[in-house]
Amino acid sequence: MPARSENLIAWGDCDAAGIVYFPKYFHFMNVAFQALMHNGGFGHRRLHDELGVHVPIVDAGAKFLSPLRYEDRLVVEAKVVHWGTKSFRIAYKGVRANVPVFEGYEARVWARIATDGTIATVAIAPEFKTAIAAAGG
Amino acid sequence: MPARSENLIAWGDCDAAGIVYFPKYFHFMNVAFQALMHNGGFGHRRLHDELGVHVPIVDAGAKFLSPLRYEDRLVVEAKVVHWGTKSFRIAYKGVRANVPVFEGYEARVWARIATDGTIATVAIAPEFKTAIAAAGG
Amino acid sequence: MPARSENLIAWGDCDAAGIVYFPKYFHFMNVAFQALMHNGGFGHRRLHDELGVHVPIVDAGAKFLSPLRYEDRLVVEAKVVHWGTKSFRIAYKGVRANVPVFEGYEARVWARIATDGTIATVAIAPEFKTAIAAAGG
Amino acid sequence: MPARSENLIAWGDCDAAGIVYFPKYFHFMNVAFQALMHNGGFGHRRLHDELGVHVPIVDAGAKFLSPLRYEDRLVVEAKVVHWGTKSFRIAYKGVRANVPVFEGYEARVWARIATDGTIATVAIAPEFKTAIAAAGG
Repeated sequence: MPARSENLIAWGDCDAAGIVYFPKYFHFMNVAFQALMHNGGFGHRRLHDELGVHVPIVDAGAKFLSPLRYEDRLVVEAKVVHWGTKSFRIAYKGVRANVPVFEGYEARVWARIATDGTIATVAIAPEFKTAIAAAGG
Repeated sequence: MPARSENLIAWGDCDAAGIVYFPKYFHFMNVAFQALMHNGGFGHRRLHDELGVHVPIVDAGAKFLSPLRYEDRLVVEAKVVHWGTKSFRIAYKGVRANVPVFEGYEARVWARIATDGTIATVAIAPEFKTAIAAAGG
Repeated sequence: MPARSENLIAWGDCDAAGIVYFPKYFHFMNVAFQALMHNGGFGHRRLHDELGVHVPIVDAGAKFLSPLRYEDRLVVEAKVVHWGTKSFRIAYKGVRANVPVFEGYEARVWARIATDGTIATVAIAPEFKTAIAAAGG
Repeated sequence: MPARSENLIAWGDCDAAGIVYFPKYFHFMNVAFQALMHNGGFGHRRLHDELGVHVPIVDAGAKFLSPLRYEDRLVVEAKVVHWGTKSFRIAYKGVRANVPVFEGYEARVWARIATDGTIATVAIAPEFKTAIAAAGG
């Protein structure tokens, strides 16, 4: 079962056409991934503070199937669909009351990020995979 | 020649890893498209106020090739790579001092958007295509 | 009793210092006001769709008392502290586990906003005041 | 003479009323401050990478005088109006073609920010004050 997160669409999430400004959907995917990690007991803080690791995105995309307005409720499901040695891929589905809103994906890497922003990938720790899987992702 | 827009990366564009938060890149694509329309004399305002039309996105994606920090300068090139009857596709390239930062795309439709957010596609006016082409897009 | 809304701080809400980027707090105030209106049965949609009215902000400010990181939980309390004929003032308190995070305010007006962005204030409907008061605001 | 920065209002900066979503104005102030520091040769990077210092905000506010739409040009003037030992205050004015848009302020501190987000204020280096003053701020 994929992990789920819920978002109430805010007035400020919408653009002048009265519907969600599409970069926000990538933010909502990010929020769903954060929830997935948190549910698995392996959040951004633990990743960074204990292991010095980040999970930057190297590829992302989405198809937008129906628009949302402010005051709508968006549920986002997140599921890891591929684990590589240093990278993994998450599939997302956004729905409002069972109406499909978007389908998207992110490819992320495990990496150390230097102060100057340089990204060096590292092997994903097995316990991270286990934690995410346990959380339904 | 594609249209170009320039962005100075702001402190607030970056996340806790010190690099641009990736949904912002989709915002920068949006800004580049706005510049392209503006250069062609056919901006969002004219589209909306004269024709009652919007250009919502139905598909978008990007590959992120190298990170940016605050105070970096990002140049985004935008070029329409496909014109359909009701939809079109824009290709984007982001560079910092000739270093590739991202490659992305958006598929957009011409549409009327009702007060309840419902989207109805309409045929793209020929003069819109002409204007965008004249602006290098 | 003031109305309360809860926010989980997202990775993307934070800046390169690892703490919430301060304009986001004004967004969280906005979200709390949206929740207050919603609880009173008089949300943005009803305001706009039925009455053609918006509630733009003419003055806002906040003192930031302690920082938040990603994965923190922020509770925002909202209470209307002044009702004028056409304007009203909301006071906000943000807390994390009883630690004060910020204190802020917004002054808003009831207004019609024309397509060109022009704002014309109008008298606040008594039923709006009643609805907000009933919701604890 | 205060330092000036210019912003083209993006489609995505506006809300469903078609005008700039007000938290964005605090972002634009932040951008103007970044420009002021950059003009003085003492940007965020130099502050952080050389001195380990940040300039978090402890108080901010603004009055909004007239609305902006997408495709408007906003010029923001920034000037430091008070220097304390550890804190300083910046006044901002936003204009569009000489029409006042907003007046705002930020109070900032010089500080070290620990990994857990804790803020410890430190005395402002004299060369920072000199650099900002030289840049017109």
